[in-house]
Amino acid sequence: MGNTKKQLHLGAFIFGVGHHVAAWRHPHTDTKGLLTLDFYRKFAQIAERGKFDMIFVEDIPTLPERLDTAVRHTVPVRAEPLTLLSALASVTKHIGLAGTVSTTYSEPYHVARKFASLDHLSGGRAAWNVVTTSMEITAQNFGRDHHLDHSLRYERAKEFVDVVTALWDSWEEDALVIDKASGIFADPDKVHTTAHQGTHFSVRGPLNVPRTPQGRPVIVQAGSSTTGQAFAAQTAEVVFTAWQTLAEAQGFYASLKGQLPAYGRSPDELKIMPGILPIIGRTEEEAREKEAALQELVHPSVGLSMVSGVLRHDLSAYPLDGPLPDLPDSTEINGGKSRYQLILDMARREQLTIRQLIARVTGARGHRTIAGTPVQIADMLEEWFLKEACDGFNIMPPYLPEGLEQFVDLVVPELQRRGLYRTAYTGRTLREHLGLAQPKNRYTKSAISL
Amino acid sequence: MGNTKKQLHLGAFIFGVGHHVAAWRHPHTDTKGLLTLDFYRKFAQIAERGKFDMIFVEDIPTLPERLDTAVRHTVPVRAEPLTLLSALASVTKHIGLAGTVSTTYSEPYHVARKFASLDHLSGGRAAWNVVTTSMEITAQNFGRDHHLDHSLRYERAKEFVDVVTALWDSWEEDALVIDKASGIFADPDKVHTTAHQGTHFSVRGPLNVPRTPQGRPVIVQAGSSTTGQAFAAQTAEVVFTAWQTLAEAQGFYASLKGQLPAYGRSPDELKIMPGILPIIGRTEEEAREKEAALQELVHPSVGLSMVSGVLRHDLSAYPLDGPLPDLPDSTEINGGKSRYQLILDMARREQLTIRQLIARVTGARGHRTIAGTPVQIADMLEEWFLKEACDGFNIMPPYLPEGLEQFVDLVVPELQRRGLYRTAYTGRTLREHLGLAQPKNRYTKSAISL
Repeated sequence: MGNTKKQLHLGAFIFGVGHHVAAWRHPHTDTKGLLTLDFYRKFAQIAERGKFDMIFVEDIPTLPERLDTAVRHTVPVRAEPLTLLSALASVTKHIGLAGTVSTTYSEPYHVARKFASLDHLSGGRAAWNVVTTSMEITAQNFGRDHHLDHSLRYERAKEFVDVVTALWDSWEEDALVIDKASGIFADPDKVHTTAHQGTHFSVRGPLNVPRTPQGRPVIVQAGSSTTGQAFAAQTAEVVFTAWQTLAEAQGFYASLKGQLPAYGRSPDELKIMPGILPIIGRTEEEAREKEAALQELVHPSVGLSMVSGVLRHDLSAYPLDGPLPDLPDSTEINGGKSRYQLILDMARREQLTIRQLIARVTGARGHRTIAGTPVQIADMLEEWFLKEACDGFNIMPPYLPEGLEQFVDLVVPELQRRGLYRTAYTGRTLREHLGLAQPKNRYTKSAISL
Repeated sequence: MGNTKKQLHLGAFIFGVGHHVAAWRHPHTDTKGLLTLDFYRKFAQIAERGKFDMIFVEDIPTLPERLDTAVRHTVPVRAEPLTLLSALASVTKHIGLAGTVSTTYSEPYHVARKFASLDHLSGGRAAWNVVTTSMEITAQNFGRDHHLDHSLRYERAKEFVDVVTALWDSWEEDALVIDKASGIFADPDKVHTTAHQGTHFSVRGPLNVPRTPQGRPVIVQAGSSTTGQAFAAQTAEVVFTAWQTLAEAQGFYASLKGQLPAYGRSPDELKIMPGILPIIGRTEEEAREKEAALQELVHPSVGLSMVSGVLRHDLSAYPLDGPLPDLPDSTEINGGKSRYQLILDMARREQLTIRQLIARVTGARGHRTIAGTPVQIADMLEEWFLKEACDGFNIMPPYLPEGLEQFVDLVVPELQRRGLYRTAYTGRTLREHLGLAQPKNRYTKSAISL
């Protein structure tokens, strides 16, 4: 069953000890285990048991600017994504490993090399989530007073990805000869300097890692602004996004997929996966109680501080049960534009008070929350998937690992029953899980032209 | 036996598929397995069976300048060290994990974070080998036309290490509270911005990774030039070095240990571990035959190219059976100074022909080679250790994994019989294996001053 039917894709999102800001206070969360291998191994093995396409590790290389609140009441610490994913490569066999690295604060040679290394060590399971980093304070950890402007960040990101993919191509597929008898290790005619000289980077190459099992690691992106979409349409193979309603998600899906042909790409070459925060109960009432119980664990100062942060506006002077004040459009802010606009639109559309908005932001951080039974959750996922709002979902468990375990034990079987989801891995690499083709190497001459 | 006696330390060096340039052609080397997890897992598990203090991964983030020869006849590809070591953290329990990262081409925040993450994930087994990178061509992979000058590289390295250790200190030992009931995750008074503003870096901090199991990952260095020694005396906890003779090694040992008190450090706070390439036979004759057989696998163009590279002088016009031409002193070259001088001194002292020098450089690359029986090798190691030429050794197997396996099965038991080496791990962290104290946190106020 389900073999001929189109199936959806799933990512398991790692965010601290869970996506909900109070995850760490939940009685079943092993918060003291944070940053230990055991904590993450459990997560990865549950996700692999659930036949997830990939694990997805978010990242910002800084602590938040509002240090006092962030440190006192939230879990702002994060293992470096590549270090974490490599450790997980050894304790998993099938699942993809997607990690976030910023183009604003990194060097293309290092990034190309790390993901190529992970792709080799994992046997073809690496993916790079390309971000330009939205938190301004990050600049000050890297010798700059100010964050790069939004459009300049994307310009740099585009060049960065060009350099990285050129480095991934620098060894052709059949460059390695490894003939012990003749002493030929590789064919130097199939190893290419990239000789890139651009606006932001000059990189000679070649990479000191040969062509990887996936050809190239999978490219993931998350920007949903106009600039972000154009960038994704050119280069991304997976887009991670956030939508509150079916209509919005459908609009985005049609818009982004529609931009692909202009770059000579087919709509199938890019998978769109919105984030979903599931809260699972035996009954809808139980799920709502769980959600409320989590919400009660949010320290009062945290919610206000989080919403003020996302909206770049100190809300502490406004009544909690009143509406948001007038705020400017996202064109006037630098970084996290699409998240900003999404939260603002949601507040306006649903006429939320500041207190209600806090509940939304501290939970799913702008992503869709669905509290319900496994069947209700599967219904929602199925509807979005069948109605062309997405190709799959990033599942953001509210707290870990139990939130993921419940999804795997209760929702995944329901999706499988409906033929919407794999019951076993059929592929070997992440590209194969996602149904993405092996990329062509820009340096390889076709047989005809020889 | 051996519990009260001072014991030596051992590192297992990963260099491609073995330290000998022809390692990849050896019939027992799994060259096609290069860059797979299996290849390295086998290595790591053999080293752990041998109760090694640590695995040591060298690195240069570039392919050699002489691309054609390097690619055609040698194995110039390398997994990125942190990616590799994290993957190995999951398949080992005790052994330390030391990785090389250049201060010339990296950002302190990233480096601090990666090693802190590895230290957490491995339960206190991380070490950072601080290098300034000796290969000039590297600059061109990172947007620079020229490599930084030697003294400027060390100036930058010193500041880099200062920033990294400050970031490692930015969370005090007891900053994490994790009190679910009261909702206090951490005490912000114990989380410190580094607010570093220096010549090469400005880094706000704090790190987004809390204090690690070892307090700080262990600092390793390899520079043996005068500048390198001064740097090591101030900051290193392990020094990796290369010496051909007992007298030279003793001289270096006395000189470097003698510099520690000037920085308020005791000689025990720094462990000196020269590299040794062992070729093991049941008889000395068998070992010499093995060595000769490896040497025969060196492609003629490779040896000349390697020696020309180390000595920064094209030797192809000189007769192979004649002496080296006159070459300038190491003060006139930029990068790899100590290796340059060591090779030059060796050639002069032993009056080696170019052909003989090639044999030395393609094997141990300037490190001491010892071909002999397990007892002869143990004798040499014991002599150097007892006569204060070192605190232990980095073992550089000529080819992998067999070269390491033979050392573990034949030489380690001989060292254990003599009481010179542990028969079981007694510590939990790399610091404990090495007998290094947990470092003090610069931000923690002593009880008295409170």
